[in-house]
Amino acid sequence: HSAKTLEKWGFKVTYLPVDQYGLVDPAEVVRAMTEETILVSIMHANNEIGTIEPIEEISRVVKERKVYFHTDAIATTGIMPLDVGELGVDCLSLSADQFYGPKGVGALFLRKGTRIMPYLEGGIQEDGRRAGTENVAGIVGLGKAAELAKKEMEKRRRHLFFLRKKLINELPRRIEHLRINGHPELRLPNNVHVCIEFIEGESMLMLLDSQGIATSSGSACTSRALKVSHVLTAIGVPAAVAQGSLFFSLGTDNSEEDIDYLLETLPSVVQRLREMSPLYKK
Amino acid sequence: HSAKTLEKWGFKVTYLPVDQYGLVDPAEVVRAMTEETILVSIMHANNEIGTIEPIEEISRVVKERKVYFHTDAIATTGIMPLDVGELGVDCLSLSADQFYGPKGVGALFLRKGTRIMPYLEGGIQEDGRRAGTENVAGIVGLGKAAELAKKEMEKRRRHLFFLRKKLINELPRRIEHLRINGHPELRLPNNVHVCIEFIEGESMLMLLDSQGIATSSGSACTSRALKVSHVLTAIGVPAAVAQGSLFFSLGTDNSEEDIDYLLETLPSVVQRLREMSPLYKK
Repeated sequence: HSAKTLEKWGFKVTYLPVDQYGLVDPAEVVRAMTEETILVSIMHANNEIGTIEPIEEISRVVKERKVYFHTDAIATTGIMPLDVGELGVDCLSLSADQFYGPKGVGALFLRKGTRIMPYLEGGIQEDGRRAGTENVAGIVGLGKAAELAKKEMEKRRRHLFFLRKKLINELPRRIEHLRINGHPELRLPNNVHVCIEFIEGESMLMLLDSQGIATSSGSACTSRALKVSHVLTAIGVPAAVAQGSLFFSLGTDNSEEDIDYLLETLPSVVQRLREMSPLYKK
Repeated sequence: HSAKTLEKWGFKVTYLPVDQYGLVDPAEVVRAMTEETILVSIMHANNEIGTIEPIEEISRVVKERKVYFHTDAIATTGIMPLDVGELGVDCLSLSADQFYGPKGVGALFLRKGTRIMPYLEGGIQEDGRRAGTENVAGIVGLGKAAELAKKEMEKRRRHLFFLRKKLINELPRRIEHLRINGHPELRLPNNVHVCIEFIEGESMLMLLDSQGIATSSGSACTSRALKVSHVLTAIGVPAAVAQGSLFFSLGTDNSEEDIDYLLETLPSVVQRLREMSPLYKK
Protein backbone atom coordinates (compact mmCIF):
# COMPACT_ATOMS: atom_id res chain seq x y z
CA HIS A 1 0.00 0.00 0.00
CA SER A 2 2.81 2.38 0.84
CA ALA A 3 4.37 1.39 -2.48
CA LYS A 4 1.12 2.31 -4.28
CA THR A 5 1.26 5.73 -2.61
CA LEU A 6 4.83 6.21 -3.77
CA GLU A 7 3.66 5.41 -7.30
CA LYS A 8 1.02 8.14 -7.00
CA TRP A 9 3.83 10.54 -6.06
CA GLY A 10 5.66 9.61 -9.24
CA PHE A 11 8.12 6.99 -8.01
CA LYS A 12 8.58 3.83 -10.06
CA VAL A 13 8.01 0.67 -8.05
CA THR A 14 8.93 -2.89 -9.10
CA TYR A 15 7.09 -5.69 -7.31
CA LEU A 16 9.06 -8.93 -6.99
CA PRO A 17 7.57 -12.35 -7.61
CA VAL A 18 7.75 -15.16 -5.04
CA ASP A 19 7.95 -18.93 -5.48
CA GLN A 20 5.28 -21.39 -4.36
CA TYR A 21 6.46 -21.08 -0.75
CA GLY A 22 6.39 -17.29 -0.82
CA LEU A 23 10.19 -16.98 -1.01
CA VAL A 24 11.89 -14.05 -2.75
CA ASP A 25 14.86 -15.08 -4.88
CA PRO A 26 17.93 -12.83 -4.31
CA ALA A 27 18.70 -13.18 -8.02
CA GLU A 28 15.33 -11.57 -8.77
CA VAL A 29 16.27 -8.64 -6.54
CA VAL A 30 19.47 -8.13 -8.53
CA ARG A 31 17.55 -8.32 -11.80
CA ALA A 32 14.99 -5.74 -10.63
CA MET A 33 17.50 -3.13 -9.45
CA THR A 34 18.40 -0.30 -11.81
CA GLU A 35 20.66 2.74 -11.64
CA GLU A 36 17.70 4.65 -10.22
CA THR A 37 16.85 2.25 -7.39
CA ILE A 38 17.01 3.96 -3.99
CA LEU A 39 15.25 1.48 -1.75
CA VAL A 40 14.62 -2.26 -1.54
CA SER A 41 12.01 -3.42 0.97
CA ILE A 42 11.37 -7.09 1.77
CA MET A 43 9.35 -8.48 4.69
CA HIS A 44 11.41 -10.49 7.13
CA ALA A 45 8.59 -13.00 7.35
CA ASN A 46 5.20 -13.01 5.76
CA ASN A 47 2.54 -12.44 8.41
CA GLU A 48 0.00 -14.64 6.63
CA ILE A 49 1.75 -17.79 5.45
CA GLY A 50 4.71 -17.48 7.83
CA THR A 51 7.53 -17.86 5.30
CA ILE A 52 10.83 -16.36 6.45
CA GLU A 53 12.72 -14.55 3.68
CA PRO A 54 16.49 -14.88 3.13
CA ILE A 55 17.20 -11.31 4.30
CA GLU A 56 20.95 -11.82 4.87
CA GLU A 57 21.45 -13.12 1.33
CA ILE A 58 19.35 -10.35 -0.16
CA SER A 59 21.20 -7.70 1.86
CA ARG A 60 24.49 -8.83 0.33
CA VAL A 61 23.29 -8.18 -3.22
CA VAL A 62 21.54 -4.92 -2.25
CA LYS A 63 24.60 -3.54 -0.47
CA GLU A 64 26.82 -3.96 -3.51
CA ARG A 65 24.66 -1.30 -5.15
CA LYS A 66 24.62 1.14 -2.22
CA VAL A 67 20.86 1.13 -2.04
CA TYR A 68 18.88 1.45 1.23
CA PHE A 69 17.51 -1.88 2.41
CA HIS A 70 14.41 -2.04 4.60
CA THR A 71 12.80 -5.04 6.21
CA ASP A 72 9.45 -5.28 7.93
CA ALA A 73 10.19 -7.42 10.98
CA ILE A 74 6.77 -7.04 12.57
CA ALA A 75 6.03 -10.75 12.33
CA THR A 76 9.48 -11.89 13.52
CA THR A 77 10.29 -9.51 16.40
CA GLY A 78 10.32 -11.36 19.70
CA ILE A 79 9.97 -14.71 18.01
CA MET A 80 13.39 -15.06 16.46
CA PRO A 81 16.73 -13.37 17.13
CA LEU A 82 17.06 -10.07 15.25
CA ASP A 83 20.50 -8.63 14.66
CA VAL A 84 20.44 -5.67 12.31
CA GLY A 85 24.17 -6.18 11.69
CA GLU A 86 23.76 -9.81 10.66
CA LEU A 87 20.61 -9.09 8.68
CA GLY A 88 22.50 -6.28 6.95
CA VAL A 89 19.53 -3.91 6.85
CA ASP A 90 19.50 -0.10 7.02
CA CYS A 91 15.94 0.15 8.30
CA LEU A 92 13.86 -2.33 10.26
CA SER A 93 10.30 -1.81 11.46
CA LEU A 94 8.66 -3.58 14.37
CA SER A 95 5.47 -3.37 16.39
CA ALA A 96 5.13 -3.90 20.15
CA ASP A 97 1.79 -5.71 20.10
CA GLN A 98 3.32 -8.56 18.13
CA PHE A 99 5.51 -9.56 21.08
CA TYR A 100 3.06 -8.98 23.95
CA GLY A 101 3.77 -5.25 24.27
CA PRO A 102 1.12 -2.53 24.15
CA LYS A 103 -0.97 -1.93 21.03
CA GLY A 104 -0.39 1.19 19.00
CA VAL A 105 3.35 1.59 19.40
CA GLY A 106 6.19 0.48 17.15
CA ALA A 107 9.77 1.31 16.34
CA LEU A 108 11.83 1.96 13.25
CA PHE A 109 15.51 1.10 13.39
CA LEU A 110 17.57 3.42 11.19
CA ARG A 111 21.22 2.77 10.56
CA LYS A 112 23.27 5.89 11.33
CA GLY A 113 23.29 8.17 8.33
CA THR A 114 20.08 6.84 6.81
CA ARG A 115 18.10 9.83 5.56
CA ILE A 116 14.33 9.70 5.71
CA MET A 117 11.51 12.16 5.25
CA PRO A 118 9.70 13.11 8.48
CA TYR A 119 6.76 10.84 9.07
CA LEU A 120 4.88 13.59 10.91
CA GLU A 121 5.87 17.23 10.54
CA GLY A 122 5.39 20.11 12.91
CA GLY A 123 7.64 19.57 15.89
CA ILE A 124 11.12 18.72 17.04
CA GLN A 125 10.17 15.48 18.80
CA GLU A 126 12.12 12.36 17.81
CA ASP A 127 14.70 14.50 15.99
CA GLY A 128 11.96 16.08 13.89
CA ARG A 129 11.10 12.76 12.28
CA ARG A 130 7.85 12.21 14.11
CA ALA A 131 6.30 15.33 15.60
CA GLY A 132 3.90 15.30 18.51
CA THR A 133 3.91 14.37 22.17
CA GLU A 134 5.42 10.92 22.52
CA ASN A 135 3.35 7.94 23.73
CA VAL A 136 5.61 7.54 26.76
CA ALA A 137 3.72 4.67 28.39
CA GLY A 138 3.69 2.83 25.06
CA ILE A 139 7.39 3.38 24.50
CA VAL A 140 8.26 2.09 27.97
CA GLY A 141 5.94 -0.89 27.41
CA LEU A 142 7.66 -1.70 24.13
CA GLY A 143 11.03 -1.65 25.86
CA LYS A 144 9.85 -3.92 28.65
CA ALA A 145 8.20 -6.33 26.21
CA ALA A 146 11.43 -6.49 24.19
CA GLU A 147 13.41 -7.20 27.35
CA LEU A 148 11.06 -10.06 28.30
CA ALA A 149 11.00 -11.42 24.75
CA LYS A 150 14.78 -11.56 24.66
CA LYS A 151 14.97 -13.25 28.04
CA GLU A 152 12.31 -15.85 27.28
CA MET A 153 12.93 -16.28 23.58
CA GLU A 154 14.44 -19.75 23.63
CA LYS A 155 11.72 -21.06 25.93
CA ARG A 156 8.97 -19.45 23.84
CA ARG A 157 10.45 -20.78 20.61
CA ARG A 158 10.79 -24.37 21.87
CA HIS A 159 7.18 -24.33 23.02
CA LEU A 160 5.87 -22.88 19.75
CA PHE A 161 7.94 -25.27 17.60
CA PHE A 162 6.47 -28.17 19.54
CA LEU A 163 2.87 -26.99 19.08
CA ARG A 164 3.39 -26.10 15.42
CA LYS A 165 4.93 -29.48 14.64
CA LYS A 166 2.02 -31.32 16.16
CA LEU A 167 -0.50 -29.22 14.26
CA ILE A 168 1.31 -29.51 10.91
CA ASN A 169 1.78 -33.27 11.32
CA GLU A 170 -1.74 -34.03 12.43
CA LEU A 171 -3.93 -31.74 10.35
CA PRO A 172 -3.37 -33.45 6.95
CA ARG A 173 -3.91 -36.86 8.60
CA ARG A 174 -7.28 -35.85 9.95
CA ILE A 175 -8.63 -33.72 7.11
CA GLU A 176 -8.62 -34.63 3.41
CA HIS A 177 -7.88 -32.02 0.73
CA LEU A 178 -5.94 -29.86 3.14
CA ARG A 179 -2.91 -27.96 1.93
CA ILE A 180 -0.32 -26.40 4.21
CA ASN A 181 0.86 -23.05 2.86
CA GLY A 182 4.24 -21.43 3.25
CA HIS A 183 7.65 -22.99 3.48
CA PRO A 184 7.93 -26.34 5.32
CA GLU A 185 11.08 -25.29 7.23
CA LEU A 186 11.67 -21.56 6.80
CA ARG A 187 8.56 -20.47 8.63
CA LEU A 188 7.57 -18.59 11.77
CA PRO A 189 7.39 -20.92 14.77
CA ASN A 190 3.97 -19.52 15.69
CA ASN A 191 2.37 -19.79 12.26
CA VAL A 192 0.29 -22.51 10.63
CA HIS A 193 -1.56 -21.57 7.47
CA VAL A 194 -3.74 -24.01 5.60
CA CYS A 195 -6.24 -24.09 2.75
CA ILE A 196 -9.09 -26.53 3.14
CA GLU A 197 -10.81 -27.26 -0.15
CA PHE A 198 -14.57 -27.15 -0.66
CA ILE A 199 -15.01 -24.85 2.30
CA GLU A 200 -15.76 -21.17 2.73
CA GLY A 201 -13.29 -19.70 5.24
CA GLU A 202 -15.62 -17.23 6.93
CA SER A 203 -18.19 -19.94 7.82
CA MET A 204 -15.39 -22.05 9.25
CA LEU A 205 -14.24 -19.08 11.38
CA MET A 206 -17.70 -18.59 12.79
CA LEU A 207 -18.20 -22.25 13.66
CA LEU A 208 -14.76 -22.46 15.27
CA ASP A 209 -15.44 -19.25 17.17
CA SER A 210 -18.65 -20.73 18.58
CA GLN A 211 -16.52 -23.61 19.90
CA GLY A 212 -14.07 -21.22 21.54
CA ILE A 213 -11.38 -21.33 18.87
CA ALA A 214 -10.18 -17.95 17.54
CA THR A 215 -8.57 -18.13 14.11
CA SER A 216 -8.39 -15.91 11.08
CA SER A 217 -8.88 -16.34 7.38
CA GLY A 218 -6.32 -13.72 6.46
CA SER A 219 -4.22 -10.93 7.87
CA ALA A 220 -5.72 -8.54 10.42
CA CYS A 221 -5.25 -5.71 7.93
CA THR A 222 -7.42 -7.20 5.21
CA SER A 223 -9.58 -10.00 6.64
CA ARG A 224 -12.66 -7.84 6.95
CA ALA A 225 -12.28 -6.71 3.34
CA LEU A 226 -13.47 -10.18 2.19
CA LYS A 227 -11.07 -10.31 -0.71
CA VAL A 228 -8.93 -13.25 -1.74
CA SER A 229 -5.53 -12.74 -0.15
CA HIS A 230 -2.94 -11.26 -2.54
CA VAL A 231 -0.39 -13.41 -0.72
CA LEU A 232 -2.18 -16.62 -1.67
CA THR A 233 -2.60 -15.38 -5.23
CA ALA A 234 1.14 -14.65 -5.39
CA ILE A 235 2.10 -18.19 -4.37
CA GLY A 236 -0.24 -19.62 -6.98
CA VAL A 237 -3.16 -20.85 -4.86
CA PRO A 238 -6.29 -21.02 -7.06
CA ALA A 239 -9.02 -18.58 -5.94
CA ALA A 240 -11.48 -21.41 -5.14
CA VAL A 241 -8.97 -23.08 -2.81
CA ALA A 242 -7.95 -19.73 -1.27
CA GLN A 243 -11.56 -19.29 -0.12
CA GLY A 244 -10.98 -22.01 2.45
CA SER A 245 -7.91 -20.48 4.03
CA LEU A 246 -7.38 -20.73 7.75
CA PHE A 247 -4.55 -19.17 9.68
CA PHE A 248 -3.53 -20.23 13.18
CA SER A 249 -1.40 -17.86 15.17
CA LEU A 250 0.01 -19.71 18.15
CA GLY A 251 0.81 -17.88 21.36
CA THR A 252 3.05 -18.64 24.29
CA ASP A 253 -0.09 -19.15 26.38
CA ASN A 254 -1.37 -21.94 24.13
CA SER A 255 -0.98 -25.42 25.59
CA GLU A 256 -0.80 -28.85 24.05
CA GLU A 257 -4.38 -29.37 25.24
CA ASP A 258 -5.42 -26.41 23.08
CA ILE A 259 -3.87 -28.10 20.05
CA ASP A 260 -5.56 -31.39 20.90
CA TYR A 261 -8.90 -29.64 21.25
CA LEU A 262 -8.40 -27.96 17.88
CA LEU A 263 -7.45 -31.26 16.25
CA GLU A 264 -10.60 -32.85 17.63
CA THR A 265 -12.91 -29.99 16.72
CA LEU A 266 -11.77 -28.92 13.27
CA PRO A 267 -12.47 -32.20 11.37
CA SER A 268 -16.14 -32.22 12.42
CA VAL A 269 -16.54 -28.52 11.53
CA VAL A 270 -15.02 -29.22 8.11
CA GLN A 271 -17.25 -32.26 7.66
CA ARG A 272 -20.36 -30.27 8.52
CA LEU A 273 -19.53 -27.49 6.07
CA ARG A 274 -18.56 -29.84 3.28
CA GLU A 275 -21.89 -31.61 3.59
CA MET A 276 -23.52 -28.26 2.81
CA SER A 277 -21.23 -27.56 -0.14
CA PRO A 278 -22.50 -28.31 -3.66
CA LEU A 279 -18.89 -28.68 -4.84
CA TYR A 280 -17.91 -31.45 -2.49
CA LYS A 281 -18.55 -35.05 -3.44
CA LYS A 282 -17.50 -37.87 -1.16
CA HIS B 1 4.84 22.80 9.06
CA SER B 2 2.13 20.70 7.45
CA ALA B 3 1.39 23.69 5.24
CA LYS B 4 5.06 23.82 4.20
CA THR B 5 4.83 20.15 3.22
CA LEU B 6 1.73 20.87 1.12
CA GLU B 7 3.69 23.60 -0.64
CA LYS B 8 6.41 21.06 -1.46
CA TRP B 9 3.69 18.89 -3.03
CA GLY B 10 2.67 21.80 -5.22
CA PHE B 11 -0.26 23.27 -3.29
CA LYS B 12 -0.48 27.03 -2.91
CA VAL B 13 -0.75 28.13 0.70
CA THR B 14 -1.69 31.61 1.96
CA TYR B 15 -0.63 32.45 5.51
CA LEU B 16 -2.91 34.91 7.28
CA PRO B 17 -1.64 37.80 9.40
CA VAL B 18 -2.75 38.35 13.00
CA ASP B 19 -3.18 41.52 15.03
CA GLN B 20 -1.12 42.43 18.10
CA TYR B 21 -3.16 40.02 20.22
CA GLY B 22 -2.73 37.15 17.77
CA LEU B 23 -6.30 37.40 16.46
CA VAL B 24 -7.21 36.41 12.92
CA ASP B 25 -9.63 38.84 11.26
CA PRO B 26 -12.51 37.05 9.44
CA ALA B 27 -12.32 39.75 6.75
CA GLU B 28 -8.73 38.66 6.05
CA VAL B 29 -9.95 35.09 5.59
CA VAL B 30 -12.47 36.28 2.97
CA ARG B 31 -9.79 38.31 1.20
CA ALA B 32 -7.39 35.34 1.10
CA MET B 33 -9.87 32.83 -0.36
CA THR B 34 -9.86 32.24 -4.09
CA GLU B 35 -11.78 30.00 -6.48
CA GLU B 36 -9.12 27.37 -5.90
CA THR B 37 -9.26 27.34 -2.10
CA ILE B 38 -10.11 23.89 -0.76
CA LEU B 39 -9.24 24.20 2.92
CA VAL B 40 -9.05 26.87 5.61
CA SER B 41 -7.29 25.91 8.84
CA ILE B 42 -7.22 28.17 11.92
CA MET B 43 -6.17 27.18 15.43
CA HIS B 44 -8.97 27.36 17.97
CA ALA B 45 -6.55 28.88 20.44
CA ASN B 46 -2.86 29.57 20.16
CA ASN B 47 -0.94 27.19 22.41
CA GLU B 48 1.75 29.78 23.17
CA ILE B 49 0.08 33.10 23.87
CA GLY B 50 -3.36 31.64 24.64
CA THR B 51 -5.45 33.81 22.32
CA ILE B 52 -8.78 32.24 21.34
CA GLU B 53 -9.72 32.79 17.69
CA PRO B 54 -13.24 33.75 16.52
CA ILE B 55 -13.87 30.34 14.93
CA GLU B 56 -17.68 30.74 14.71
CA GLU B 57 -17.39 34.02 12.82
CA ILE B 58 -14.71 32.65 10.51
CA SER B 59 -16.76 29.50 9.84
CA ARG B 60 -19.64 31.65 8.58
CA VAL B 61 -17.52 33.29 5.89
CA VAL B 62 -15.76 30.02 4.99
CA LYS B 63 -19.03 28.10 4.62
CA GLU B 64 -20.43 30.57 2.08
CA ARG B 65 -17.67 29.37 -0.22
CA LYS B 66 -18.16 25.64 0.39
CA VAL B 67 -14.59 25.17 1.50
CA TYR B 68 -13.50 22.68 4.17
CA PHE B 69 -12.82 24.33 7.51
CA HIS B 70 -10.41 22.78 10.00
CA THR B 71 -9.55 23.90 13.48
CA ASP B 72 -6.79 22.68 15.75
CA ALA B 73 -8.50 22.46 19.14
CA ILE B 74 -5.58 20.82 20.94
CA ALA B 75 -5.16 23.77 23.32
CA THR B 76 -8.89 24.19 24.01
CA THR B 77 -10.18 20.61 24.40
CA GLY B 78 -11.24 19.95 27.96
CA ILE B 79 -10.77 23.57 28.94
CA MET B 80 -13.71 25.14 27.15
CA PRO B 81 -16.92 23.73 25.71
CA LEU B 82 -16.45 22.42 22.16
CA ASP B 83 -19.49 22.02 19.94
CA VAL B 84 -18.53 21.24 16.37
CA GLY B 85 -22.00 22.38 15.28
CA GLU B 86 -21.68 25.79 16.92
CA LEU B 87 -18.07 26.18 15.84
CA GLY B 88 -19.16 25.31 12.30
CA VAL B 89 -16.08 23.26 11.50
CA ASP B 90 -15.73 20.22 9.22
CA CYS B 91 -12.62 18.89 10.91
CA LEU B 92 -11.36 19.34 14.45
CA SER B 93 -8.19 17.85 15.90
CA LEU B 94 -7.53 17.21 19.57
CA SER B 95 -4.96 15.45 21.73
CA ALA B 96 -5.65 13.45 24.90
CA ASP B 97 -2.59 14.55 26.88
CA GLN B 98 -3.84 18.15 26.86
CA PHE B 99 -6.81 17.23 29.06
CA TYR B 100 -5.11 14.74 31.41
CA GLY B 101 -5.54 11.76 29.11
CA PRO B 102 -2.69 9.50 27.99
CA LYS B 103 0.18 10.81 25.87
CA GLY B 104 0.42 9.76 22.26
CA VAL B 105 -3.24 9.55 21.33
CA GLY B 106 -5.50 12.08 19.67
CA ALA B 107 -8.65 12.31 17.63
CA LEU B 108 -9.77 13.97 14.43
CA PHE B 109 -13.43 14.89 14.12
CA LEU B 110 -14.62 14.70 10.52
CA ARG B 111 -18.03 15.95 9.52
CA LYS B 112 -19.91 13.27 7.59
CA GLY B 113 -18.94 13.42 3.94
CA THR B 114 -15.57 15.10 4.51
CA ARG B 115 -13.08 13.41 2.23
CA ILE B 116 -9.51 13.06 3.39
CA MET B 117 -6.45 11.19 2.22
CA PRO B 118 -5.45 8.25 4.43
CA TYR B 119 -3.00 9.33 7.06
CA LEU B 120 -1.39 5.88 7.15
CA GLU B 121 -1.90 3.42 4.32
CA GLY B 122 -1.77 -0.36 4.35
CA GLY B 123 -4.76 -1.63 6.29
CA ILE B 124 -8.49 -1.38 6.78
CA GLN B 125 -8.33 -0.08 10.36
CA GLU B 126 -10.25 3.15 11.11
CA ASP B 127 -12.04 2.88 7.75
CA GLY B 128 -8.73 2.73 5.92
CA ARG B 129 -7.80 6.23 7.07
CA ARG B 130 -5.20 5.17 9.59
CA ALA B 131 -3.81 1.68 9.10
CA GLY B 132 -2.26 -0.37 11.86
CA THR B 133 -3.28 -1.97 15.12
CA GLU B 134 -5.15 0.60 17.18
CA ASN B 135 -3.75 1.92 20.47
CA VAL B 136 -6.75 0.52 22.36
CA ALA B 137 -5.62 1.52 25.85
CA GLY B 138 -4.90 5.04 24.60
CA ILE B 139 -8.27 5.32 22.88
CA VAL B 140 -10.13 4.19 26.02
CA GLY B 141 -8.02 6.61 28.08
CA LEU B 142 -8.90 9.48 25.75
CA GLY B 143 -12.59 8.66 26.13
CA LYS B 144 -12.38 8.53 29.90
CA ALA B 145 -10.38 11.77 30.07
CA ALA B 146 -13.00 13.47 27.87
CA GLU B 147 -15.79 12.20 30.11
CA LEU B 148 -14.04 13.58 33.22
CA ALA B 149 -13.19 16.86 31.51
CA LYS B 150 -16.82 17.37 30.54
CA LYS B 151 -18.04 16.54 34.04
CA GLU B 152 -15.54 18.77 35.81
CA MET B 153 -15.20 21.51 33.24
CA GLU B 154 -17.00 24.29 35.10
CA LYS B 155 -15.12 23.56 38.29
CA ARG B 156 -11.76 23.41 36.45
CA ARG B 157 -12.48 26.63 34.59
CA ARG B 158 -13.48 28.59 37.68
CA HIS B 159 -10.29 27.49 39.42
CA LEU B 160 -8.05 28.33 36.46
CA PHE B 161 -9.71 31.72 35.88
CA PHE B 162 -9.07 32.59 39.51
CA LEU B 163 -5.39 31.61 39.34
CA ARG B 164 -4.84 33.31 35.99
CA LYS B 165 -6.44 36.54 37.16
CA LYS B 166 -4.21 36.71 40.20
CA LEU B 167 -1.10 36.05 38.12
CA ILE B 168 -1.99 38.59 35.41
CA ASN B 169 -2.89 41.25 37.96
CA GLU B 170 0.13 40.79 40.16
CA LEU B 171 2.99 40.13 37.73
CA PRO B 172 3.17 43.66 36.22
CA ARG B 173 2.93 45.17 39.72
CA ARG B 174 5.93 43.22 40.93
CA ILE B 175 8.16 43.25 37.85
CA GLU B 176 9.01 46.29 35.74
CA HIS B 177 9.22 46.09 31.97
CA LEU B 178 6.94 43.08 31.84
CA ARG B 179 4.53 42.68 28.96
CA ILE B 180 1.59 40.29 28.96
CA ASN B 181 1.12 38.69 25.56
CA GLY B 182 -2.09 37.51 23.94
CA HIS B 183 -5.59 38.91 24.21
CA PRO B 184 -6.63 40.32 27.62
CA GLU B 185 -10.08 38.62 27.52
CA LEU B 186 -10.16 36.10 24.69
CA ARG B 187 -7.55 33.79 26.13
CA LEU B 188 -7.22 30.26 27.48
CA PRO B 189 -8.04 30.13 31.19
CA ASN B 190 -4.86 28.14 31.85
CA ASN B 191 -2.47 30.36 29.93
CA VAL B 192 -0.31 33.29 31.02
CA HIS B 193 2.38 34.39 28.59
CA VAL B 194 4.74 37.26 29.33
CA CYS B 195 7.87 38.87 27.95
CA ILE B 196 10.28 40.22 30.51
CA GLU B 197 12.71 42.72 29.02
CA PHE B 198 16.49 42.61 29.55
CA ILE B 199 16.36 38.92 30.35
CA GLU B 200 17.33 35.76 28.51
CA GLY B 201 14.44 33.29 28.78
CA GLU B 202 16.47 30.08 29.03
CA SER B 203 18.45 31.34 32.05
CA MET B 204 15.17 32.31 33.72
CA LEU B 205 13.80 28.81 33.10
CA MET B 206 16.82 27.19 34.70
CA LEU B 207 16.73 29.39 37.79
CA LEU B 208 13.00 28.86 38.21
CA ASP B 209 13.44 25.14 37.72
CA SER B 210 16.02 25.06 40.51
CA GLN B 211 13.38 26.65 42.75
CA GLY B 212 10.82 24.00 41.81
CA ILE B 213 8.90 26.03 39.25
CA ALA B 214 8.40 24.42 35.83
CA THR B 215 7.72 26.87 33.03
CA SER B 216 8.54 27.12 29.36
CA SER B 217 9.93 29.76 27.07
CA GLY B 218 7.94 28.57 24.08
CA SER B 219 5.82 25.74 22.79
CA ALA B 220 6.84 22.15 23.51
CA CYS B 221 7.28 21.63 19.78
CA THR B 222 9.94 24.28 19.30
CA SER B 223 11.39 25.31 22.66
CA ARG B 224 14.48 23.16 22.33
CA ALA B 225 15.16 24.62 18.90
CA LEU B 226 16.27 27.90 20.57
CA LYS B 227 14.68 30.05 17.90
CA VAL B 228 12.61 33.16 18.48
CA SER B 229 8.98 32.08 18.45
CA HIS B 230 7.26 32.71 15.11
CA VAL B 231 4.13 33.46 17.15
CA LEU B 232 5.79 36.36 18.95
CA THR B 233 7.22 37.63 15.67
CA ALA B 234 3.74 37.52 14.13
CA ILE B 235 2.22 39.67 16.88
CA GLY B 236 5.01 42.23 16.49
CA VAL B 237 7.15 41.51 19.56
CA PRO B 238 10.71 42.74 18.87
CA ALA B 239 13.28 39.90 18.83
CA ALA B 240 15.18 41.32 21.84
CA VAL B 241 12.02 41.36 23.96
CA ALA B 242 10.95 37.93 22.70
CA GLN B 243 14.18 36.52 24.18
CA GLY B 244 12.69 37.03 27.62
CA SER B 245 9.47 35.14 27.01
CA LEU B 246 7.98 33.02 29.73
CA PHE B 247 4.91 30.88 29.44
CA PHE B 248 2.94 29.56 32.40
CA SER B 249 0.59 26.68 31.78
CA LEU B 250 -1.72 26.34 34.77
CA GLY B 251 -3.14 22.99 35.75
CA THR B 252 -6.12 21.94 37.79
CA ASP B 253 -3.69 20.70 40.45
CA ASN B 254 -2.14 24.13 40.92
CA SER B 255 -3.20 25.91 44.07
CA GLU B 256 -3.31 29.55 45.09
CA GLU B 257 -0.22 28.82 47.19
CA ASP B 258 1.62 27.82 44.00
CA ILE B 259 0.77 31.20 42.49
CA ASP B 260 1.86 33.03 45.63
CA TYR B 261 5.15 31.14 45.62
CA LEU B 262 5.71 32.03 41.98
CA LEU B 263 4.90 35.70 42.65
CA GLU B 264 7.44 35.73 45.48
CA THR B 265 10.16 33.88 43.58
CA LEU B 266 10.04 35.37 40.10
CA PRO B 267 10.91 39.02 40.97
CA SER B 268 14.16 38.02 42.70
CA VAL B 269 15.11 35.72 39.81
CA VAL B 270 14.47 38.56 37.37
CA GLN B 271 16.45 40.96 39.54
CA ARG B 272 19.41 38.60 39.70
CA LEU B 273 19.49 38.08 35.93
CA ARG B 274 19.04 41.77 35.16
CA GLU B 275 22.02 42.59 37.35
CA MET B 276 24.08 40.37 35.07
CA SER B 277 22.70 41.95 31.89
CA PRO B 278 24.77 44.63 30.14
CA LEU B 279 21.57 46.02 28.59
CA TYR B 280 19.75 46.75 31.83
CA LYS B 281 20.26 50.07 33.58
CA LYS B 282 18.38 50.88 36.78
